[in-house]
Amino acid sequence: MAPSLRETSPELKEALEDTVQMVDKAIARLLPEGELAESTLYDAMRYGTLSGGKRLRPFMVMQSAKLFNVDPSRAKRVASAIELIHAYSLIHDDLPAMDNSDLRRGKPTVHRAYDEATAILAGDGLQSMAFQILAAPETHEDPYVRCALVASLADASGLHGMVGGQMLDLIGETTEFDLGTISRMQRMKTGKLMAFSCEAGAILGKAGDQYRRALTSYAYDLGLAFQVTDDILDVEGNSNETGKPANQDEKAGKSTFVSTMGKDQAKQRAEMLVDQAVRHLHIFEGRAKMLEELAYYVLNRRA
Amino acid sequence: MAPSLRETSPELKEALEDTVQMVDKAIARLLPEGELAESTLYDAMRYGTLSGGKRLRPFMVMQSAKLFNVDPSRAKRVASAIELIHAYSLIHDDLPAMDNSDLRRGKPTVHRAYDEATAILAGDGLQSMAFQILAAPETHEDPYVRCALVASLADASGLHGMVGGQMLDLIGETTEFDLGTISRMQRMKTGKLMAFSCEAGAILGKAGDQYRRALTSYAYDLGLAFQVTDDILDVEGNSNETGKPANQDEKAGKSTFVSTMGKDQAKQRAEMLVDQAVRHLHIFEGRAKMLEELAYYVLNRRA
Repeated sequence: MAPSLRETSPELKEALEDTVQMVDKAIARLLPEGELAESTLYDAMRYGTLSGGKRLRPFMVMQSAKLFNVDPSRAKRVASAIELIHAYSLIHDDLPAMDNSDLRRGKPTVHRAYDEATAILAGDGLQSMAFQILAAPETHEDPYVRCALVASLADASGLHGMVGGQMLDLIGETTEFDLGTISRMQRMKTGKLMAFSCEAGAILGKAGDQYRRALTSYAYDLGLAFQVTDDILDVEGNSNETGKPANQDEKAGKSTFVSTMGKDQAKQRAEMLVDQAVRHLHIFEGRAKMLEELAYYVLNRRA
Repeated sequence: MAPSLRETSPELKEALEDTVQMVDKAIARLLPEGELAESTLYDAMRYGTLSGGKRLRPFMVMQSAKLFNVDPSRAKRVASAIELIHAYSLIHDDLPAMDNSDLRRGKPTVHRAYDEATAILAGDGLQSMAFQILAAPETHEDPYVRCALVASLADASGLHGMVGGQMLDLIGETTEFDLGTISRMQRMKTGKLMAFSCEAGAILGKAGDQYRRALTSYAYDLGLAFQVTDDILDVEGNSNETGKPANQDEKAGKSTFVSTMGKDQAKQRAEMLVDQAVRHLHIFEGRAKMLEELAYYVLNRRA
């Protein structure tokens, strides 16, 4: 059977479900419920972080940490911090001035469920909280490790990463991008945070450079495959499954892998990227099976 | 002459001007100019951070660092990080969904000079950058110190600090607050970041708890005095001097110190707070003269 046709194994399914539960619990503990006047803000933060999601990034953290025998209670904190950053970016991306999305995972987006001001502040607060978690001694006893985590997450989130990529994405609505710019945009927008998610385990485990490089290379290829399949799902996905309206990209006039190379070539590209991603994991000699399977899962997902 | 009537000394004036120049240079170096497609984002970040401002927080960092003989090149990095957080909060606060301000320091706000999406992303990127600066080895050789800086800034910026205070501020547009809630709101919105600005010097200098406490107590009192004078300037200030339209608070229906206690009592309160702030500095036995003078400067400012 061709690798690209692999079905999700029961082990991967279980590990993914475990991560969802674990990260939901961890985030719920981090975000207070309160009786204060400003508790609407906390509610919005909980709503924006606990309304589903595949928790792929936390899964990457947990699995990469496992490769270096990192205490899961520490990895969990890093996994939560990354998910808070991811959630904040979705909340801001959905705003009327940005992608103007009313639905996310089949539910009203934060600015629809609350209001725009609350959504802006909820995103801002989630970003601060992510760094606060990483800097705390509970995340790792070695402050060098904590500083490395803060520095890498900040880099992945900022103008050379997620925020810069999102800016490119908006520019792409009025400017036609070539394939190189689309790839660069996606690497910044999605790739860098995924790369950090995989690298985080190696940072926590003080692993050698060759392992860090293998994990980040895996993540960049997988991240790109993820975006290519995202573009494919946008044109052929079922909005009941994806939880968002179909053909959003085309309506927004965005340059995507599909609009640039066509659907068939995009599918081939995604398969090639996934095969390449998996090859980077060979250094772990079969111990990174869950990350391998994750790559095929990303390729075959329907949502 | 009563302390509240003190004029700004030539020394303070010079020190403030030096800080403005120093922080402008430092931020300009931190924020790249680029030829990339997304360089509009960099431009907006520069515009939002380099369009004037009194740089009170950087001044507090530099002066508190001086008390503990901290290398100014390190203090400068922390001063810049705090100013980036302050600038991001102003950019987001000015957005149409928040305070809906067209002018800031007499110039179009970031979302007016660029657009809303760019303003949201510029703010987001500035926040990430602030933490990246603090986590970098150039800020301090001791990673414990760097982690302490990240943790404190994240706390001061987040839902228990600036972001939570801003949420309260928005709620205050439709809910009448008592004096206690207004004070709590201002402590979160302005006080915490000022407290961190003053504490930062002590953290960088690994100073004892009694000095940290003295500096944060000074900053909280001064921060509150700053807000009371802000409310007073809103009703009696000259928009040519303040750079923003008059009576914004009243128009927005906000509960302020002036609306709650009246202008005369508010003035008395500000004077009392400044006197109290200065008393916290007695532990430095006259070495914190610039911070003392800053307190009177805040009280007497016209903008």
